[in-house]
Amino acid sequence: MTLSHQKLLANIRIVLTRTSHPGNIGAAARAMKTMGLSQLVLVDPAVFPNSQAEAMASGATDVLAQARVCSTLAEALAGATLALGVSARRRDIMAEVLTPPQCAARLLGEAQQAPVALVFGNETSGLSNEELSLCQGLVSIPANPDYSSLNLAAAVQVLAYEIRQAWLGRTAWPQPEIDAAPSEDVERFYRHLESTLAELEFLNPGSPGKLMLKLRRLFSRTRLAREEVNILRGILTAVHEAQASRNPGAK
Amino acid sequence: MTLSHQKLLANIRIVLTRTSHPGNIGAAARAMKTMGLSQLVLVDPAVFPNSQAEAMASGATDVLAQARVCSTLAEALAGATLALGVSARRRDIMAEVLTPPQCAARLLGEAQQAPVALVFGNETSGLSNEELSLCQGLVSIPANPDYSSLNLAAAVQVLAYEIRQAWLGRTAWPQPEIDAAPSEDVERFYRHLESTLAELEFLNPGSPGKLMLKLRRLFSRTRLAREEVNILRGILTAVHEAQASRNPGAK
Repeated sequence: MTLSHQKLLANIRIVLTRTSHPGNIGAAARAMKTMGLSQLVLVDPAVFPNSQAEAMASGATDVLAQARVCSTLAEALAGATLALGVSARRRDIMAEVLTPPQCAARLLGEAQQAPVALVFGNETSGLSNEELSLCQGLVSIPANPDYSSLNLAAAVQVLAYEIRQAWLGRTAWPQPEIDAAPSEDVERFYRHLESTLAELEFLNPGSPGKLMLKLRRLFSRTRLAREEVNILRGILTAVHEAQASRNPGAK
Repeated sequence: MTLSHQKLLANIRIVLTRTSHPGNIGAAARAMKTMGLSQLVLVDPAVFPNSQAEAMASGATDVLAQARVCSTLAEALAGATLALGVSARRRDIMAEVLTPPQCAARLLGEAQQAPVALVFGNETSGLSNEELSLCQGLVSIPANPDYSSLNLAAAVQVLAYEIRQAWLGRTAWPQPEIDAAPSEDVERFYRHLESTLAELEFLNPGSPGKLMLKLRRLFSRTRLAREEVNILRGILTAVHEAQASRNPGAK
């Protein structure tokens, strides 16, 4: 194994959003470390740091100590080019639902070039539609249809296990087909799109939610390359300028 | 899927021996149920039943309520023809160390004919050598060599997940090659062997332990068929009778 192969695992972030029980954060850290993952990111955890998290982490308190705490999922995904959301429920909004082995292959393939993220939702409510709109794919663990509710740390364990098995099984993955834009660039594009649509009065600036969510879903299905983000933003700038020249009185 | 395919999962027992923390029992029950397993057997648990176990079981309290509590592993394995022990450490005493997918295929293959068991040891000390001597194979989850200590319920989750994936993937497995003897017949043979060796004064009846453990390991490597157990016990009876005729004074 080359050093770069070792580093692949360090390019995979485990992101836990709005976790209610600190014990689950500790248990997730332990699950990660047993499979060689170390990058834990917590979005708006209810309680952290916490002694129960430390207790459940057992020998993985180093993973907890290095965990990054963010206030938004967008912040947690900064620099990452691929985010996959984990959900027991199939959501029609996602074009692609990956099995755990497919998830592992996608993450490792993309991790050869840039950081990637696997995103877990709240214990009770899962990932919100807004959180899912920041993901480019959905992962579902095949489970008992009568009771599919895996504990959060147990779900982390299963997917970390699959990542390790895929990682152990080979040392190279197909290169990702596009030069994907990092998530903050895509977010900047969405803000640009939203402000442009507001200028066009196509969007009610007071409640932009639903339409923007639909547009996000559209673009997250087709991954955006860096160059494509630049082109789209160029179009938006052109629209803005045309709009400004038509209404010279407007700001 | 045929009904018999459904019943396969009901032929797989999850056996937890000497579990220290009741929360782990509950979490293991939840892990089992998410993957469609229902047969939980507890050997000499430190604390059970218990409210923490119930809390961690979440929606799987039915699995806990149906759990069988035994005082010995031999009792827990009664009727089962195959027992696989889970251990992070490779033990030289076992001929065969199975990966999780191999473990799943073996259990499901044998479960077509008879109950089988997957045996987990104490959280800190794992399976004792004596417990392992009752198993016919060892299962090891490939993990980070620097930190391979999966939480008990997390290990149950990974192996239950692999069992379900194998179960979903196909509806038939190769029939087991031999008509394996159930564990209580094998245990009866060992007791018969021990008493015969004591008669022969080959064994010190005060401390039969080490030699018997070595003999157990020998026979557990080659699975014993029902017919073979009968043959071996026939030989032991013949030895006993020859011995009795040589020493007519002895009982």
